[in-house]
Amino acid sequence: MKRIVLGVQYDGTPWLGYQTQPHGETVQDKLEAALLQFTRQQVNTVCAGRTDAGVHALEQVVHFDIDLSRNPFSWVRGTNAYLPPSIAVRWAAEVEPDPAFAAFDRGASQADAAGPVASTHFTPQPGLPDLTQPGMQHEFHSRFSATARTYHYVLYNNPIHSPLLRQRVGWVFRPLDVERMQQGANYLLGVHDFSAFRAAHCQAKTPVKLMHEISILRRGDMIIFTLRASAFLHHMVRNIVGSLIVVGSGNQPPEWMAQILAGKDRSKAAPTFMPDGLYLARIDYDPKWGLPQQAHVLPWL
Amino acid sequence: MKRIVLGVQYDGTPWLGYQTQPHGETVQDKLEAALLQFTRQQVNTVCAGRTDAGVHALEQVVHFDIDLSRNPFSWVRGTNAYLPPSIAVRWAAEVEPDPAFAAFDRGASQADAAGPVASTHFTPQPGLPDLTQPGMQHEFHSRFSATARTYHYVLYNNPIHSPLLRQRVGWVFRPLDVERMQQGANYLLGVHDFSAFRAAHCQAKTPVKLMHEISILRRGDMIIFTLRASAFLHHMVRNIVGSLIVVGSGNQPPEWMAQILAGKDRSKAAPTFMPDGLYLARIDYDPKWGLPQQAHVLPWL
Repeated sequence: MKRIVLGVQYDGTPWLGYQTQPHGETVQDKLEAALLQFTRQQVNTVCAGRTDAGVHALEQVVHFDIDLSRNPFSWVRGTNAYLPPSIAVRWAAEVEPDPAFAAFDRGASQADAAGPVASTHFTPQPGLPDLTQPGMQHEFHSRFSATARTYHYVLYNNPIHSPLLRQRVGWVFRPLDVERMQQGANYLLGVHDFSAFRAAHCQAKTPVKLMHEISILRRGDMIIFTLRASAFLHHMVRNIVGSLIVVGSGNQPPEWMAQILAGKDRSKAAPTFMPDGLYLARIDYDPKWGLPQQAHVLPWL
Repeated sequence: MKRIVLGVQYDGTPWLGYQTQPHGETVQDKLEAALLQFTRQQVNTVCAGRTDAGVHALEQVVHFDIDLSRNPFSWVRGTNAYLPPSIAVRWAAEVEPDPAFAAFDRGASQADAAGPVASTHFTPQPGLPDLTQPGMQHEFHSRFSATARTYHYVLYNNPIHSPLLRQRVGWVFRPLDVERMQQGANYLLGVHDFSAFRAAHCQAKTPVKLMHEISILRRGDMIIFTLRASAFLHHMVRNIVGSLIVVGSGNQPPEWMAQILAGKDRSKAAPTFMPDGLYLARIDYDPKWGLPQQAHVLPWL
């Protein structure tokens, strides 16, 4: 078996989100259908971050296991031949198990040989790496090996909407004060319980996440929010952006963000903002995996 | 009667071109339908440059006459309320007749009073402005008052297509040499007979146009062609870009552009390139009309 990793870009507008659904109108369904057509094998894929309906990806990362050898560009071209134009595989790579774990592997194999071991419920032992921590997996896993995620939210801030940017940006017609929003955003940096910005049906095990960065940049009429965190709760970016817009338009002071965060009450934050401007931009992995990830600057930055 | 001028932006993807057609699926049909709903009057509009199916406009300019007073932002908001999201009025202005023509006007009125005059077939007289020349009209006219037009063609030059740019850019997967294309483009500057780049069904009176500028700029994987001319023949930009791509990919030398131009034979140039990356960007008018035209930088420049 080989583990293949794909970098996938998509326009989320035509799809009901990333994750597979019975009706099949999702990015995952289209990707797995294309892989089936290309490889003549049923392939089960795992993605780094499930995106909602209407949300885009500059570089979603997906992996799957298959008993088939193809060179990387053949995976790209072969899969793209069967994908709709709103989805494209941008790169492919075959990942090998981490050689640093070789010694540990041998130990594990001996344990296996000695009798049945519940290897899926591994308990860290002194002197051995804790494989339940992100980035510590023996084998690459698009979701569990990810050490951080970056999202962009792109806003068009102009009195009149732009037909040429529709379904690619959010739109706010009232003038927004970027510096004010940045002040509010800074309260969210670090480790926090983000329950205030969490959707009711979120399935994450814990609402505690590490926010590495929130930067807000104006370029003409465009405002670009960049959020990088260990992981995100469901609707977290759109709920944060919605609340920052309330601050940016002057309806709440920057400190309001700190109050919402501390209150842990979703009903106190602003409504979930429209998906149109949201992009899953990048997944961070240990360079040891050697993925050919691309520096995905948004085309309009 | 008042003469109202609108700046109109549209995504050309859903429409069968600008100009009205019996089936009604054009930008002009949607604009006039919106004006009818807003004003309760049948309005006949005139545009500066008709664009083909799939071609976009950053700022098309349209005028019409109506016996109704509204402030500019009311024209914008009122019309947009009835337009689909792929079309938007970005600004509106009421234009007054040019005061510099007042003396001439009085003469014309006296001539009218003296008897019937075929005023639509005006013959220039010594000492009086020639109203058949662009920019010399007494009253503003979106097409006849225009002194130049600017188009952008945006190309995505990358081995893999980009789902997020589809229907907004043309795509060429082979590497293109921008300097080579610029050398070829320079042969087209100045006054020329552009028959070699003219569609068979083009209705222009003459194929002779003045090309003011062709600049070709690379920004990462994007190549932006900017063409400014007195006017353009049907398909002229897409035929020129298609031929420059042949030069840029190394299949013809830059001088080939001069040979095609001199030959005046459409069949010698490259096929008409895809409409997806073509934008009507700006119409030039004498500043005396006081139009609130916007500096339309493409969002991804």
